[in-house]
Amino acid sequence: MSANSNEPDWRPLLDDMRGTIDNIDAALVHLLAERFKCTQRVGELKARYRLPPGDPSREAVQIERLRALARSARLDPDFAEKFLNFIIKEVIRHHEAIKDKR
Amino acid sequence: MSANSNEPDWRPLLDDMRGTIDNIDAALVHLLAERFKCTQRVGELKARYRLPPGDPSREAVQIERLRALARSARLDPDFAEKFLNFIIKEVIRHHEAIKDKR
Repeated sequence: MSANSNEPDWRPLLDDMRGTIDNIDAALVHLLAERFKCTQRVGELKARYRLPPGDPSREAVQIERLRALARSARLDPDFAEKFLNFIIKEVIRHHEAIKDKR
Repeated sequence: MSANSNEPDWRPLLDDMRGTIDNIDAALVHLLAERFKCTQRVGELKARYRLPPGDPSREAVQIERLRALARSARLDPDFAEKFLNFIIKEVIRHHEAIKDKR
């Protein structure tokens, strides 16, 4: 499977694509870290003013907005919604931990 | 709870933080869309060369790398690992769909 054979060499192609995926993952992790710093601040504000950890009306707006963004970016909107629910579940867990600590 | 009362006004603070979260979410959706475009290409390459959809040794390296990145970004490494597993599960589902279509 060298460059001289008739069969294309998939290894360098695969490694190149994986390098891009790894760069995107690093960006995702850093954005997620910033997002949790923000929701941590929101959690502290909510605990201070005794606001409930979750906010279903806010979540419904977020889901609709993300589904629309996903469609325009050609990402499966169902996946975008599953992704947001996955994140929100973790955020509510953090907010409840902040509330319990007070 | 106006600016003139002794009680700080939490509403503008909360709205400001939520605006930042919404901007981060838009960036996350766009990065995820690019990531799935990449893994789609990987899936097509794998189907073409009859490589298996999942690659446990690659996944183990990805998880260790993301855990280290998470630690340096002050994100819970367990959450980063759960996040990657959530994404990989979806990717393998896509790869299997590509394989089944051929």
